[in-house]
Amino acid sequence: MAPKNRLFLGSFVHSKALDELEYLHNAVVCVDTSGTIVAVERECDEARAKEILFPRLGWDMDDVEVVTAQKGQFFFPGFIDTHLHAPQYPNVGIFGNSTLLDWLNTYTFPIEASLSDPARARQVYTRVIRKTLSHGTTCAAYYATIDVPSTNLLADLCLAAGQRALVGRVCMDQFSPDYYRDSSPESALAATCESIAHIRRADPSMSLVRPIITPRFAPSCSVPLMRQLGQLAAETQLPIQTHISENGAEIATVKKLFPPSATSAQDDSYAAVYDAMGLLTERTILAHAVHLTEAEAELVAARNAKVSHCPCSNTALTSGAARMRWLLDKGIVCGLGTDMSGGYSPSILAAARHAVLVSRHRAMGRPGAEGEREKLSVEEVLFLATRGGAQVVGLEGKVGGFEVGMEWDAQLVGLGMVDEEGNAEEDGGDVDVFGWQGWEDMIPKWVYNGDDRNTKKVWVKGRLVHERK
Amino acid sequence: MAPKNRLFLGSFVHSKALDELEYLHNAVVCVDTSGTIVAVERECDEARAKEILFPRLGWDMDDVEVVTAQKGQFFFPGFIDTHLHAPQYPNVGIFGNSTLLDWLNTYTFPIEASLSDPARARQVYTRVIRKTLSHGTTCAAYYATIDVPSTNLLADLCLAAGQRALVGRVCMDQFSPDYYRDSSPESALAATCESIAHIRRADPSMSLVRPIITPRFAPSCSVPLMRQLGQLAAETQLPIQTHISENGAEIATVKKLFPPSATSAQDDSYAAVYDAMGLLTERTILAHAVHLTEAEAELVAARNAKVSHCPCSNTALTSGAARMRWLLDKGIVCGLGTDMSGGYSPSILAAARHAVLVSRHRAMGRPGAEGEREKLSVEEVLFLATRGGAQVVGLEGKVGGFEVGMEWDAQLVGLGMVDEEGNAEEDGGDVDVFGWQGWEDMIPKWVYNGDDRNTKKVWVKGRLVHERK
Repeated sequence: MAPKNRLFLGSFVHSKALDELEYLHNAVVCVDTSGTIVAVERECDEARAKEILFPRLGWDMDDVEVVTAQKGQFFFPGFIDTHLHAPQYPNVGIFGNSTLLDWLNTYTFPIEASLSDPARARQVYTRVIRKTLSHGTTCAAYYATIDVPSTNLLADLCLAAGQRALVGRVCMDQFSPDYYRDSSPESALAATCESIAHIRRADPSMSLVRPIITPRFAPSCSVPLMRQLGQLAAETQLPIQTHISENGAEIATVKKLFPPSATSAQDDSYAAVYDAMGLLTERTILAHAVHLTEAEAELVAARNAKVSHCPCSNTALTSGAARMRWLLDKGIVCGLGTDMSGGYSPSILAAARHAVLVSRHRAMGRPGAEGEREKLSVEEVLFLATRGGAQVVGLEGKVGGFEVGMEWDAQLVGLGMVDEEGNAEEDGGDVDVFGWQGWEDMIPKWVYNGDDRNTKKVWVKGRLVHERK
Repeated sequence: MAPKNRLFLGSFVHSKALDELEYLHNAVVCVDTSGTIVAVERECDEARAKEILFPRLGWDMDDVEVVTAQKGQFFFPGFIDTHLHAPQYPNVGIFGNSTLLDWLNTYTFPIEASLSDPARARQVYTRVIRKTLSHGTTCAAYYATIDVPSTNLLADLCLAAGQRALVGRVCMDQFSPDYYRDSSPESALAATCESIAHIRRADPSMSLVRPIITPRFAPSCSVPLMRQLGQLAAETQLPIQTHISENGAEIATVKKLFPPSATSAQDDSYAAVYDAMGLLTERTILAHAVHLTEAEAELVAARNAKVSHCPCSNTALTSGAARMRWLLDKGIVCGLGTDMSGGYSPSILAAARHAVLVSRHRAMGRPGAEGEREKLSVEEVLFLATRGGAQVVGLEGKVGGFEVGMEWDAQLVGLGMVDEEGNAEEDGGDVDVFGWQGWEDMIPKWVYNGDDRNTKKVWVKGRLVHERK
């Protein structure tokens, strides 16, 4: 079925600034057949849109699909998950009392290795794409595995499902089990190039799915491998994703494995190692960044590298409480990541909620204004989930808000309205809105108790990619 | 319809000890018409139950209802919510960046006061009972408001819905707004007695709904009021619920309002104030207990008073991270509370999850074994949610596990089983179990990602009180 021009009607909510949401009520958004927003008009309805917008847009009156947000519903930009491991999805919630390094060996490497089985890869990747789409994730930065065919399959499945994605074939040639590692820097590079070539063939315009260069994390990459990947990134201008400063033992390992004598870095800090390898760029997504030093944060800011904040994972693996206010104050661009399966939840809304909560744990014990400053607001975490995420994955100006020229990556959110007898429709989930409550109550209620039941429809680039039955 | 004898078949999971779950597979549990468990048999099925159990129980073969847990399903004890404010339910998720004392004045007292409107009270209480039942809460210790008729209505509605409950008319004669306070200790006592009398008439056996003496918290109660309530508790042997040591400013207020000269307490600590008033008893539920001193914890332990741990609330209001390991090591009996609406979630499963996560924040920065000791396991929080909660509300030996002589307060839990194509039934919610995963994976997956969609049926005292459509 050929895409139609579409008219979206009702309430639209998006971030205007880090700490400010903008509400557009009784508004219309026109989206053309390419999925691009071509008009945004406040205080407008269908009749008025037909009168003033359609002629200007040259739209055929009778060939426009109309989608209306009902009472208790609103359009919100799609969420951007800036860090997750697709093959680990079956393991969400499974980590016991482990921390990063033992968790990798006990739970993570075995499940990743098992996805070289194409049938299992198809099963798991199909499920994780459907699951994240159902939670309103319109764009995801995926780590796949070291296996090229299944990495390519992940890209193909994203393309087929219509999820915007960055897909990275994982590179790791040391500090990893024999059964799951690259045999040499050269073979890792070759495999990466093979996957990049596949994804470029699959989506030549790279408008939906893009390859991303993925050194797993410094400990599992040799200096030659990192150097070659840094060079590849410079040549191709492709984005890069990796981990940084998640856990104390990991940081100690980096110091031990990468003395400046081995890297020619300015010091033995984690950020300096990546910088010396050509991996700390404005197109680099650094996951976690929990324990950066002052100097490292300055370096990250100077390179304009991006940070993916993964609060659920950082808590679950006892990694630490990332200093988000400090990073934001330095002007570092940040987004949110589910980091499945270090993180337990497939939902960026849950990550946003937990980002608020973790910020309160940071505030505890810090007196007065210092503690208050640590707190992230509902508005701020929703910014991170949308506009911030868009900047992190290099799609700012293209997705993350409702403005003319941007693409329609959006979700229709519906909350449960409680009637006078105390009934509410079943599929409002846990968000119960009472008659006297307005938007300033509804949005935090959604953030604190919302789930995929509240995500009624999801579009990417204008295409309807998920609808709740 | 007269209740039938019932035979439950399948897998049963319950706590055996604080850190140990017991799995009974291919088991049967027989529940008689009074809702009491009369037989538990492992390695049994319907035919064998008929052969060996029915004759012993004197059950009519043809008049027994059979309930079977299917693949991916198991029976689990109902959850016990040891602390929540029913009238505050509409406000879940609404607190902005406030902390306890300003939150009370800005959000809490106005909504509580508004429930003197009987229509609103019916709407809100109906909703909170349905909502908590749908999350598997078979027993709740409710704070109502200062209004007697609506407090009584809450008890009536619990009785009608079949939820086991402790219902307390809130006492507060100082440090509260003029529009919402008791005019004198005497009027507060009289109103409390009026509500107690109503609940005793409504459920003379107190088998389902019991009154609970409820001084809101020390700051909002005068010394004469607390003394009279302590005396009432001694005379009636009724349980008591109140708050303790939630927040720094609150503790400072207690020290200021209650010098030992005013209370004849041994010191000006929060616990000593309650103790001097006769309110620190083995039937007392103390909510929060975040900042107890060593001496206070010793006093709480000596009195065998119980603690309701409310992790979601403690984080959301930046109250602090309660020292659960320390309390448990002292032998203090603990359960979990949602503390709506300081807590944002109606779910004790969410409270259990957040208890795990908060314990990890406590572990952060504490090196080695000391940090490890802080961590609560999935097994431990499920104990707190069931057996621990039962001890807190004085129902140990009656609910919280599956043993002969206990009452059938239970939930049927079902998880989503992912097929080979990556599909799973819609109502498995976010818990996706893959074919190769066993019970040791399923239970943590439920704790980390489960919600009311996984709670298929709920029974209290043998009565089916909730069923998902």
